[in-house]
Amino acid sequence: MTAIRIGIVGYGNLGKGVEKSIRQNSDMELVAIFTRRDPQSIQAKVPVVSLDEAESYKGKVDVMILCGGSATDLPEQGPQLARMFHTVDSFDTHARIPEYFESVNSVAAANGHISVISTGWDPGLFSLNRLLFQSILPEGNEYTFWGRGVSQGHSDAIRRVEGVKNGVQYTIPSEEAVAQVRAGQNPKLGTRDKHVRECFVVAEAGADQARIEAEIKSMPNYFADYDTIVHFISEEELKANHSAMPHGGLVFRSGVTGEGTSQIMEFGLNLGSNPEFTASVLVAYARAVYKLAARGESGARTVFDIPFGLMSPKSPEQLRKELL
Amino acid sequence: MTAIRIGIVGYGNLGKGVEKSIRQNSDMELVAIFTRRDPQSIQAKVPVVSLDEAESYKGKVDVMILCGGSATDLPEQGPQLARMFHTVDSFDTHARIPEYFESVNSVAAANGHISVISTGWDPGLFSLNRLLFQSILPEGNEYTFWGRGVSQGHSDAIRRVEGVKNGVQYTIPSEEAVAQVRAGQNPKLGTRDKHVRECFVVAEAGADQARIEAEIKSMPNYFADYDTIVHFISEEELKANHSAMPHGGLVFRSGVTGEGTSQIMEFGLNLGSNPEFTASVLVAYARAVYKLAARGESGARTVFDIPFGLMSPKSPEQLRKELL
Repeated sequence: MTAIRIGIVGYGNLGKGVEKSIRQNSDMELVAIFTRRDPQSIQAKVPVVSLDEAESYKGKVDVMILCGGSATDLPEQGPQLARMFHTVDSFDTHARIPEYFESVNSVAAANGHISVISTGWDPGLFSLNRLLFQSILPEGNEYTFWGRGVSQGHSDAIRRVEGVKNGVQYTIPSEEAVAQVRAGQNPKLGTRDKHVRECFVVAEAGADQARIEAEIKSMPNYFADYDTIVHFISEEELKANHSAMPHGGLVFRSGVTGEGTSQIMEFGLNLGSNPEFTASVLVAYARAVYKLAARGESGARTVFDIPFGLMSPKSPEQLRKELL
Repeated sequence: MTAIRIGIVGYGNLGKGVEKSIRQNSDMELVAIFTRRDPQSIQAKVPVVSLDEAESYKGKVDVMILCGGSATDLPEQGPQLARMFHTVDSFDTHARIPEYFESVNSVAAANGHISVISTGWDPGLFSLNRLLFQSILPEGNEYTFWGRGVSQGHSDAIRRVEGVKNGVQYTIPSEEAVAQVRAGQNPKLGTRDKHVRECFVVAEAGADQARIEAEIKSMPNYFADYDTIVHFISEEELKANHSAMPHGGLVFRSGVTGEGTSQIMEFGLNLGSNPEFTASVLVAYARAVYKLAARGESGARTVFDIPFGLMSPKSPEQLRKELL
């Protein structure tokens, strides 16, 4: 069997995660890394190529995995690369997905390429489970909890407070709320009931810690509506214990069938590294892209359109025998 | 929009569950119930028809939902009905799935029908999650726990013990084992570590309860390898508190990415009624069958071949906008 030839576009945390994930998948081979930066500035085991020269890799890359950001990179790179290659991405600006889908779909369809957009876990696996849950249990309540995980937006907000040198914020699901949902109590949960926010803060020398803590806890939108815990720690401690990027969460549906029979469905992720996991999801969907392309399909797709069998290196016969 | 016209084949617990589930899905309509029994013996709000006369419903039923047992009903009825109708079933004899698939596939393909086999939750949703999990995390350990739920086989075994009038057995996942897996400890779990067996037994008047308890606990295959709890209760108590058919379980993958980063995926069901839930899964897949048939597809399919989007009454545009 020939390996699926992969190109990575963008070599940040996500792109590096894809590189690692490909090593775990023996049916895949990394061909090159494409970057907007100076290719000389990146050290890698495969050629690093300027994104401007991507076209020279037509016929040499089966699937391009797009690892740029959703704010500015992907709206441009998605359609641009779908003109030349089959692609997969993790575009995650929920509100702009329909627009992004149209823009990628028209280019991919016109050029005979397949592009799976908005994979990853939210959007992605969480969306899939919400869809599955509500299709099976049309009557019920849905709950989503995020964390325990680092929120970049909230960490940035901490770092903007005067006297703060550095900081990391964890979003943590309320154990009590999760237990109530698991027990089928269908609780009505306000913002404060669902998540706790825990902050690890490095203060500037001589800064007033009580003032910093009060300022964080009362910050509108970010912290005021939550129970917030603030710890002051040293820069060394922050580097040593809070440099990883864990995340995860839980999606529930607490539904009823028949005459009020309780039925609860649950999907959960507990991720040691958010970018490495998202990268692994991208790689599995890259395999699906490859199989769809081999069938001659074209246009944009989402996770809702992709049968799970296409993500596996195993044949349909093998899957029925071993996994069903 | 015209409703999807459904026929139910077999009117036991599962068929009755399908009838209730259809009431929760406004895009579906129950046309008739088909039975091997005397149709006069069944009271229902729709026509009850002898299975021998199913052919007269060609053109009047869009999808037949097969609710017979896997031991003897489905191996015969699956191919028989796929000749005349699009079908969906929950065939659950794992070892015989490849053979059943071939037998339904040849008939369905030759007659231009679509048949989705082996839906439900195990096989079905659990299989889907195992496939998803191992596709995303190729390196890792998989764990399945069943319960808390009634095991018919173990309940039957209790009732065969001399002096036992009636009994129900619950399979219960070990809380400690589940906690270890959730914490990423990758425990090696033996049979006794994973599940506890709890028995509610009604003894005959004057029977020796100590002997019954000892006999249950030492029964090979069924109980000897487990920690087993035996309660003696009255027949009234059994009827009042143990007539429901709860079940469920948990599927985990505890995997690694990159340089040993822990990543844990989890899927869980806590079902008040096993047959009502399985019925709801069948109904969602019946919708997928209807959509595949409208595309002109034919042959047998499994849950691995069905994109989740097809199970929803919503359009692809709506799904992208509301759920992704």
